[in-house]
Amino acid sequence: MRIASLELRSKVMPAEEAARLIESGSAVGMSGFTGSGYPKAVPLALAAHIEAEHAAGRAFKVRMWTGASTGPELDGALAKADGIEFRLPYNSDPIARERINKGEMNYFDMHLSQVAPMAWQGFLGPLDTAVIEVSGIRADGSLIPSSSVGNNKTWLDRASKVILEVNSWQNEALEGMHDIYYGTALPPSRVPIPLVKPDDRIGEPYLKVDPAKVVAVVETDRPDRNAPFSPPDEKAKAIAGHILEFLQHEVKLGRLPSALLPIQSGVGNIANAVLTGLVDAPFDSLTSYTEVIQDGMLDLLDSGKLRMASATAFSLSPEAAARVNADMRRYRDKMILRPQEISNHPELIRRLGCIAMNGLIEADIYGAVNSTHVMGSRIQNGIGGSGDFARNAYISIFMTPSTAKGGKISAIVPQASHVDHINQDVQVIVTEQGLADLRGLSPKERAKVIIANCAHPDYRPLLEDYYARALKGSYGLQSPSLPAEALSWHQRFIETGSMLP
Amino acid sequence: MRIASLELRSKVMPAEEAARLIESGSAVGMSGFTGSGYPKAVPLALAAHIEAEHAAGRAFKVRMWTGASTGPELDGALAKADGIEFRLPYNSDPIARERINKGEMNYFDMHLSQVAPMAWQGFLGPLDTAVIEVSGIRADGSLIPSSSVGNNKTWLDRASKVILEVNSWQNEALEGMHDIYYGTALPPSRVPIPLVKPDDRIGEPYLKVDPAKVVAVVETDRPDRNAPFSPPDEKAKAIAGHILEFLQHEVKLGRLPSALLPIQSGVGNIANAVLTGLVDAPFDSLTSYTEVIQDGMLDLLDSGKLRMASATAFSLSPEAAARVNADMRRYRDKMILRPQEISNHPELIRRLGCIAMNGLIEADIYGAVNSTHVMGSRIQNGIGGSGDFARNAYISIFMTPSTAKGGKISAIVPQASHVDHINQDVQVIVTEQGLADLRGLSPKERAKVIIANCAHPDYRPLLEDYYARALKGSYGLQSPSLPAEALSWHQRFIETGSMLP
Repeated sequence: MRIASLELRSKVMPAEEAARLIESGSAVGMSGFTGSGYPKAVPLALAAHIEAEHAAGRAFKVRMWTGASTGPELDGALAKADGIEFRLPYNSDPIARERINKGEMNYFDMHLSQVAPMAWQGFLGPLDTAVIEVSGIRADGSLIPSSSVGNNKTWLDRASKVILEVNSWQNEALEGMHDIYYGTALPPSRVPIPLVKPDDRIGEPYLKVDPAKVVAVVETDRPDRNAPFSPPDEKAKAIAGHILEFLQHEVKLGRLPSALLPIQSGVGNIANAVLTGLVDAPFDSLTSYTEVIQDGMLDLLDSGKLRMASATAFSLSPEAAARVNADMRRYRDKMILRPQEISNHPELIRRLGCIAMNGLIEADIYGAVNSTHVMGSRIQNGIGGSGDFARNAYISIFMTPSTAKGGKISAIVPQASHVDHINQDVQVIVTEQGLADLRGLSPKERAKVIIANCAHPDYRPLLEDYYARALKGSYGLQSPSLPAEALSWHQRFIETGSMLP
Repeated sequence: MRIASLELRSKVMPAEEAARLIESGSAVGMSGFTGSGYPKAVPLALAAHIEAEHAAGRAFKVRMWTGASTGPELDGALAKADGIEFRLPYNSDPIARERINKGEMNYFDMHLSQVAPMAWQGFLGPLDTAVIEVSGIRADGSLIPSSSVGNNKTWLDRASKVILEVNSWQNEALEGMHDIYYGTALPPSRVPIPLVKPDDRIGEPYLKVDPAKVVAVVETDRPDRNAPFSPPDEKAKAIAGHILEFLQHEVKLGRLPSALLPIQSGVGNIANAVLTGLVDAPFDSLTSYTEVIQDGMLDLLDSGKLRMASATAFSLSPEAAARVNADMRRYRDKMILRPQEISNHPELIRRLGCIAMNGLIEADIYGAVNSTHVMGSRIQNGIGGSGDFARNAYISIFMTPSTAKGGKISAIVPQASHVDHINQDVQVIVTEQGLADLRGLSPKERAKVIIANCAHPDYRPLLEDYYARALKGSYGLQSPSLPAEALSWHQRFIETGSMLP
């Protein structure tokens, strides 16, 4: 029995009944971060209710706030039902993405560290309902978080009413893994966050909620639905190889300790290739201070190379989730899950000196990075935590294959069609072609290294040609550019399906 | 007598002799931040030496690091002599700007908070010589800083040899105003910075230097040469009016305390208009946590409305400097000058919840801001501290007249030709036309408000037309754009001298 509180046990009801407590036009704060810890029953029931309302000719949409991405039962079902009017702070669901790019859904793509403080600031408006998955409710009414923490603390504190989903699929041994910091405040009452090592515990293992606000408790036993693991391909391995070589070089020069510094790593198969590569690399006592605990970290933890990992969520393939669940008591001591306000906090990232590794869609020859908008207008996922980490990291690395769509898109372009990371925040760019160490370089020095080391051979001569002509015809020569041509590769792709002439 | 230390007094020599100790190819860290506290004798002597070397057919250039901008005796003289090979982190000198934009000088334009930590990281290479202006040397060899602090602590710590300029023009009553924090470190040894209010003193009033590293002491009595004050024009007053109205609205809604939150303000006549406007606004016990103390703050301090100001430098017109110097003992108690690593530290800006107000060159319809590159390629000054403040502020405001060059340039454009501040970091845009509160809005919602509230009437129909066509023809509709046309206004200006068709 996962609900020890008698008071809250009395509020158990079916998901359908709980979903009826959510009103059209209201703002709903749901749990969930990268396919873990999101509510799975109430959103589905809400989607069904919305579809029925729409069929009856009645308007019904909600404003949806979460931690980050969620699963098909939440973003997928609600987007399919056309039930989301406004979405923040991150989405990776394909159905929701399609609605956004058709202009049918307003999407406010945010720095993940800023969601909780901005919700407190008030300009986002009131939060009507929180729908939070937990793995259990204790006798005193405190909540045992599940496989992600995200913004749950803030949603529980800010919402007028709360719906809890108690998921018995979640491992009972999660209890004690979480560290919920209750020391945040609005200025002028903010104080230093007392975390100086990735393994510091500064909060409590449980979430608090005012039981009077809880209007429903729903029981489920549905699994998290994270993406399956795709093994690193040759390009991912080549990228990982360049990064590991670079890190070894920095250690050799005395610019990094041999335990490196806390590693932050985005999701995906390149990130997993880097983590896997670290198993055989000459670094010891590694730590990770990051958003998500992903497949590649398990081998690192098992090998003893990774001492511990701090994150806000699991982002594990079904196989890896089964592996962790089978051995949760052992893994638990090496993992901490925190609110995303803390996992992504600029104060802490700068203090710890994270080594940040994030993906990109395109980088321009001066190192500005677009990580969100395909051809400048079509959103892929969102900026997520990449800005929190890249701006404040000790070393900020961005990585990508040098081409996409079978060579028809170059990841290195004359000018980024949208900018998420300004050149000052992009210190290292890596493709399978090579690595560009841009630290301390002026724009023109950067352009040479990026074109030479990172561009694909099919595009390198085109970039060299553009840059040479920009050096002659540019309005100014700090960052030479030809505005009439700078976005022509994107235009060509839109018109012909390829950036190649 | 400003040199109480007998050991250091024995190293007094003429500027010409001291300048000879600086070698070609070396990296030189000089003091100076916005025209105050920069060395005035040694750089001039160095420039003369370089000119003589060049006349004799010998190459001679240095790599020049400072706090931010300096004065004509430093950047101007050395750029004129073609003596700067590489410059960081900021420049506003017109001769140096011209060299940069002709491609004759490498310029690494940096976040000002990151200069000191990156110098410690090592990838910028060794710092050979520090040339630091001080207002006095105490008997124990410690240094009384002058009218700016900037990166002086770091240059003194990192340089192999040190040249001190003791400037008797600087007010003796500056002693005690500074707060030099000696608690920074490289990770993994970083700890929380113990500052929770703008008036907290967390360090010491003096700079330390190893006397064995001091190779020369030079005496001067030359004034800081900051820009003269230009009184706010009608547009600046209109912009200030919109901002003050917005702040009052936020207080009324309970989203800001009546003492507001610590104010950060860029330099220039719009910033001064805002500060002047605050004298008559219904806010009390204001504080400022910012980079520079500028003219507009003096009236605010005298009126009692501004309780205190924390900065890293003075940036006062000659008249205002005379006013402060005549009454330094009284002003001193209301002012603190800190290292720029602290004045601009993301940890502290986020904790204090600064209200950031910075200028811009252009903003696009989605709120991305270009504050550095005219037409995308020609550097104006640099990003300076705007990124440190905008990303971490409680409210991030950008302000500009809606047009420049007599109406031939629009400050609101379809797409920014260079991005320094991504849309997530730009919460409010203000022109004399009006104010756009972008907080919590999706890109399409932002576009409507920016075009309607901020664009000049000459350009508003053109923007509406572009946006309407982008809504129909864009590849994706998260941030509708037409790459073939997005930078056409810049191209038209380059070709015809006007963005207007």
